[in-house]
Amino acid sequence: MPTLNRQYLLASHPQELITSEVLKLTEIELPPLQDGQALARVKYLSMDPTMRVWMADVPQYMPPVKIGEVMRSLGMAEIIESRHPDFKKGDKIVGLTGLQEYVLIYSSVPHSFQKLPSVPFLSDTNFLGTLGHNGLTAYFGLLEIGKPQSGETLVVSGAAGATGSIAGQLGKIHGCRVVGIAGTDEKCKWIKDELGFDAAINYKQPDWKQQLAAATPKGVDINFENVGGEIMDAVLDRMNLHGRVVLCGLISGYTHQNPSLSSFGRVLIKRLRVEGFIIFDYVSKFMDAGKQLGMWKMMGKIKDRQTIVKGLEKAPEAINMLFSGANIGKLIVEL
Amino acid sequence: MPTLNRQYLLASHPQELITSEVLKLTEIELPPLQDGQALARVKYLSMDPTMRVWMADVPQYMPPVKIGEVMRSLGMAEIIESRHPDFKKGDKIVGLTGLQEYVLIYSSVPHSFQKLPSVPFLSDTNFLGTLGHNGLTAYFGLLEIGKPQSGETLVVSGAAGATGSIAGQLGKIHGCRVVGIAGTDEKCKWIKDELGFDAAINYKQPDWKQQLAAATPKGVDINFENVGGEIMDAVLDRMNLHGRVVLCGLISGYTHQNPSLSSFGRVLIKRLRVEGFIIFDYVSKFMDAGKQLGMWKMMGKIKDRQTIVKGLEKAPEAINMLFSGANIGKLIVEL
Repeated sequence: MPTLNRQYLLASHPQELITSEVLKLTEIELPPLQDGQALARVKYLSMDPTMRVWMADVPQYMPPVKIGEVMRSLGMAEIIESRHPDFKKGDKIVGLTGLQEYVLIYSSVPHSFQKLPSVPFLSDTNFLGTLGHNGLTAYFGLLEIGKPQSGETLVVSGAAGATGSIAGQLGKIHGCRVVGIAGTDEKCKWIKDELGFDAAINYKQPDWKQQLAAATPKGVDINFENVGGEIMDAVLDRMNLHGRVVLCGLISGYTHQNPSLSSFGRVLIKRLRVEGFIIFDYVSKFMDAGKQLGMWKMMGKIKDRQTIVKGLEKAPEAINMLFSGANIGKLIVEL
Repeated sequence: MPTLNRQYLLASHPQELITSEVLKLTEIELPPLQDGQALARVKYLSMDPTMRVWMADVPQYMPPVKIGEVMRSLGMAEIIESRHPDFKKGDKIVGLTGLQEYVLIYSSVPHSFQKLPSVPFLSDTNFLGTLGHNGLTAYFGLLEIGKPQSGETLVVSGAAGATGSIAGQLGKIHGCRVVGIAGTDEKCKWIKDELGFDAAINYKQPDWKQQLAAATPKGVDINFENVGGEIMDAVLDRMNLHGRVVLCGLISGYTHQNPSLSSFGRVLIKRLRVEGFIIFDYVSKFMDAGKQLGMWKMMGKIKDRQTIVKGLEKAPEAINMLFSGANIGKLIVEL
């Protein structure tokens, strides 16, 4: 049994990106396992933009991570020793592992871990992305808030990310014209050629707003928004009357003080509905949604891709990759 | 019969406020009445913030007024001569009269005019305010989008205006704690002492944000927003999870290029629903809503107040009063 655990602690609130002042790698001793405890070895860590929010000392949807605490993250782990009634050695689990090598689970403390089902054709890491929080976010955001109708036009920003790429494919399944916005030609090629988006726009090209207009000849009915700022402004400019904005993320603002929006007046003039959401609001429907996503994934109607970074020590760098746009699809740190 | 008509034409798009470069008073001859025409004398003109939007050369919910056209406005008029099948002399009408002394109505052209019902205890000008577009805006915005529940907290900005003052009273009728934001102590006194708001906050006092926090101890469930900008930012900061923002107006931005919002991230974090609307979307329900508003008005559950400015030549000045906050309640130009 391991006796040492390496973990990243939050050492200070970040100003912009993550530096070695923000996350500190430390080593602690693992105590012998007590009755009611299980020890799991972390195999994969999910890298999500919201981690940047969790580190900031601002009001948010969960308590922010406190200075000195293990940095919060989702991950997949395998039970290596158990005196816990719910888990046995070899069980695979997903939940809030934190940025560390080992996670101790107490039966006396409420925890977030779910055992992974064993499903043919699906890999374990799918449960951190397409069949996990990213897939569920795309599913509930698009279907419950966006309410796509066949023939409508959906624009997804952050379209080559873990959530955006699925949101766009769900739009195709529901008969929408789907336009994705991403930051590299490689990403645009992937979402158009592999995922079947109708158009893909690289917002780093100088004429991207004209391209967006050309790709949305009937305007935009649904905006699945991950980015905010200038990109969202341009999409709002194209919205049709009574359009819906599924506000999933505002990643362009996470590394700044205040994500602001200059074309907010469009919401009034176009009578838009803009709605923020989080998958916690739909917990009672997780099981059905997960089955549906798994079905589409097995049928090839949803495709995904992962960017894997190896080694716990690379986690801070990996978080920054989310903001520089260096990943395609799901970004995972493999331990 | 009159032979001359004075009217304000849009001469240029305004930069900020209305100047004599923007609206020009002109005089034209009234031709003899033809078959199928009716002539009405304008008695009251409704002054509305949206007129500033109509003058701007930007995309909006109706076609903007073109240079050289009579400036659009709502008004109340009386038929003084008729060869029109739908109107007879003495009929009182409301609709888009424009900023002029006389309006010619053609049976061959679709028009916006409705005959006023004669209802005891209600004055004609009520149909330009409480029982007209202001009352309907408050009614549909609060009830259809805000969906107030008894015990919830409603914050209304522009609370002493024609629409805001009714929205707040409708909130009281539906059992909400209602807090109004306005720009003078006199306005605050009126909405609190006369209209029954639970609290009124003068946003020109330096500690108004602390006052807002103190007046909303359980947070804010519904924001009926007329103003935007810094005032809306402060209210968004107080919103509860799953709060609703009824986006009725963004008057703080109408005299600037882009109404912007710095705390837009709250919409995501608090999972808010922000919805723009316009009463045209609810035309089929106008009759029922008007009856209900009239009932409440006659029962004294809705009170209103007018600020009257005399003389057509004062109309440009009156429009500017809406932006300097000089009016209490409904602002009307009496001819």
